[in-house]
Amino acid sequence: MTPPVTLEAYLDARRAEVEAALAHALPPAPDCPAIVGEAMRYSLDAGGKRLRPILCLAAADAVAGQRGTDPAEAHALALPAACALELIHTYSLVHDDLPAMDNDTMRRGKPTLHVVAGEGMAILAGDGLLTEAFALLAREPVSEDPAVISRRLQVVGVIATAAGGTGMVGGQALDLAMDPQGSGPGASIDAAALRAMHARKTGALITAAAVAGAVIAGGDASAVAAIRRCGERFGLAFQIVDDVLDVEATSADLGKTAGKDAAAGKPTYPALYGLAESKQMARACIDDAATDLRAAGFGDTRLLDIGRWIVDRTH
Amino acid sequence: MTPPVTLEAYLDARRAEVEAALAHALPPAPDCPAIVGEAMRYSLDAGGKRLRPILCLAAADAVAGQRGTDPAEAHALALPAACALELIHTYSLVHDDLPAMDNDTMRRGKPTLHVVAGEGMAILAGDGLLTEAFALLAREPVSEDPAVISRRLQVVGVIATAAGGTGMVGGQALDLAMDPQGSGPGASIDAAALRAMHARKTGALITAAAVAGAVIAGGDASAVAAIRRCGERFGLAFQIVDDVLDVEATSADLGKTAGKDAAAGKPTYPALYGLAESKQMARACIDDAATDLRAAGFGDTRLLDIGRWIVDRTH
Repeated sequence: MTPPVTLEAYLDARRAEVEAALAHALPPAPDCPAIVGEAMRYSLDAGGKRLRPILCLAAADAVAGQRGTDPAEAHALALPAACALELIHTYSLVHDDLPAMDNDTMRRGKPTLHVVAGEGMAILAGDGLLTEAFALLAREPVSEDPAVISRRLQVVGVIATAAGGTGMVGGQALDLAMDPQGSGPGASIDAAALRAMHARKTGALITAAAVAGAVIAGGDASAVAAIRRCGERFGLAFQIVDDVLDVEATSADLGKTAGKDAAAGKPTYPALYGLAESKQMARACIDDAATDLRAAGFGDTRLLDIGRWIVDRTH
Repeated sequence: MTPPVTLEAYLDARRAEVEAALAHALPPAPDCPAIVGEAMRYSLDAGGKRLRPILCLAAADAVAGQRGTDPAEAHALALPAACALELIHTYSLVHDDLPAMDNDTMRRGKPTLHVVAGEGMAILAGDGLLTEAFALLAREPVSEDPAVISRRLQVVGVIATAAGGTGMVGGQALDLAMDPQGSGPGASIDAAALRAMHARKTGALITAAAVAGAVIAGGDASAVAAIRRCGERFGLAFQIVDDVLDVEATSADLGKTAGKDAAAGKPTYPALYGLAESKQMARACIDDAATDLRAAGFGDTRLLDIGRWIVDRTH
């Protein structure tokens, strides 16, 4: 018996795997011109929680636990998808921060990319991060096994669908099109529209992280379905907590401008439900995920710890 | 014996296949919010030559001819890649036209997307077109054949690599970083740097179109290598002719602002070599491709007609 590993140690180990793999996830200079390679790297290396990649690895872990396969092998299979998810998440931040979008000048405690590299190069670096995510998925994990090749193609589909018009891009478009100014904070947006927008903008990629990990690790249809529902609940919890932190945390905690959503009159969970009720809703998401996973035959899994981490985070 | 088909009829038939497939290449509303779906569709439906998809189909044709397989089947296999290439080409135009990039207001005879939909929505629509290209490649052609699944994943890699930092995004970054203003038209850019920039910015995706068609149709390594060289020569010819047309054609012919590169002091082939020599260089690319293809055992193939079309086009 190996001794039980604390959540903190588990997160540190997964984060170290992800950081090491991200260091090789982009094409090097001079294959990729330094001017755009360094811009991509600037945003990718700004840190962040690495939630999506860790969630992907934890989902692969959960499937390995259920199937009785080697978790280290499952991590190795899932690592390219984990990195691709972080590349896509990073591109979405770079583009969302642009003057034509949210016009943010600080992100993860550093000036945003368009501030340091100019708008044109920030647009291109975002395009590059998105594209390189798929180049990476096409390249790794290296395997001649037709089952693994088929799963890799499925992962391309899971991630592209979550990032595209039905997912993240669609959600950002809805967010951009919402103009609550002039009708009072959040007044024109009802709770259902708010939830639908966030389910696309933030939830879809978080869900895809869990699903991609489950698929590449060889989960069967019922395991993948259970982990998908779990990912959906985590995505919702994540957004609720994001809104809570926007009210409660300081800009220094967040590494970006706090209170911006409320100031912009954007609809938020605290604005609609109050702080206490919002926090309770986030916790309930994780409790529901626990029920789902137990029903699907998953034993103790780190996935639920990841859910609790999402709810308890302070930035 | 079926009667020989004219190039015009061949192009019309391929273009009809592509247009029909493009009509279903994006997720429909309300799965994809109409506001961004319509923006993507605006640029995709603006027409254009559909050169990259047709080149992809012609390469698949050439491989089918060499292998003695059914060309209609090769077209069906190659059509998703053909559409994905056009989605990516279209996204690149939308982003290149942005105020932070080339700041163009007309494209394919219509106002550019950011003019009609705003900068933020144009950035998002471009992101969506790029992402949906990979969603499409993950979805089609539908097949349970492990060989086809493996080829599809290869095609994802071919296209993503050509579109990413080592290809199109890298080329656009080099173009953006070149600032010939202040040192006279093209003075600071030598011919090698010009060629290297265009090989990435325009050549890489044209080459990928030919390679993707050859790969998905089941071409062996030597066939794919020959078609890759052919694609590289076509890409170079395309750029030379683009520069020639920028000098010779009118804005009405081009559907975009003519003479813009020269006015901006951007380095062009006519500026470096003169018009007559530039035209000769473009024709020589196609002659070289013909030699390559013959040496690789390809008989008469539409690929060379496509090359001649690239050189003889007037817009």
